Amino acid sequence: MIRSGTGQPAELFFDDISPGTFARRFDPQWYHVDVQAARASAYGDVIASGFYTASLFMRAYADGLLSRAAADASPGLEELRWTAPVYGGDRLAIRLEVLGAAPSAAKPSVGTLTLAATMTRMATDRRPAAVAVRIRFRGWFARRPSDPDLGATTVL
Amino acid sequence: MIRSGTGQPAELFFDDISPGTFARRFDPQWYHVDVQAARASAYGDVIASGFYTASLFMRAYADGLLSRAAADASPGLEELRWTAPVYGGDRLAIRLEVLGAAPSAAKPSVGTLTLAATMTRMATDRRPAAVAVRIRFRGWFARRPSDPDLGATTVL
Repeated sequence: MIRSGTGQPAELFFDDISPGTFARRFDPQWYHVDVQAARASAYGDVIASGFYTASLFMRAYADGLLSRAAADASPGLEELRWTAPVYGGDRLAIRLEVLGAAPSAAKPSVGTLTLAATMTRMATDRRPAAVAVRIRFRGWFARRPSDPDLGATTVL
Repeated sequence: MIRSGTGQPAELFFDDISPGTFARRFDPQWYHVDVQAARASAYGDVIASGFYTASLFMRAYADGLLSRAAADASPGLEELRWTAPVYGGDRLAIRLEVLGAAPSAAKPSVGTLTLAATMTRMATDRRPAAVAVRIRFRGWFARRPSDPDLGATTVL
């Protein structure tokens, strides 16, 4: 077994982390994969696929919140906006805001959260800071089983 | 150089195609990565990450339309709905509909298309067909340079 930096079984290997893997597989548009063409364009360099940055958000959301939450599923996104390009080496800061919380009408054992997230590209020597992604979405979460009847409910 | 099935340089290798790679990297929720837990749940088996199916849509959209179109960028998604789970081995049929087309007010060299796509999970021995994903989004496309002034515009 190959161990990760914290001693757990490694889940990511060199091949998973090399630049460009995602775009070549899922989004091979020239400004995501063709360095020369991208450098000669108004973008100035290769930019990240919008679904790659969305997937990075998913990972941060899973690690930061879902891993500790009684998370059920998500019906989807209300809106996803790519508002500024993301470049190799950029650092992204994520902010998550709870816009609303309501019990589910269809499923009494869960509640629906409406969440808004931004991914902000930090300033670098070459470019100013900018909000790169805005996402609004809903997530279902199990309700705390304080009611014995609810506690007996199988959520999934 | 390793060649692909059609003789081009290969872009996908064994490691890129093995099941579970996407979810372990981007969406390690138990119903995406833990086979035993997923089989014991109402899902009945591991289901695909919603961002994985969205990324598969992106690839099909790039191969099927963007590769032949004067495609500029996309401002984002109006809506993304995960309406049924997708299982390993499922075949997905994609349908793309043009809901609207309008010249861009901000950028006269491009037009904005509003598009709606569905990804339908085909029926298998185990499960009936179901619409798995619905996406509504906008894309910018360069206008045909019939006007000499438009033709001189650098689109990117």
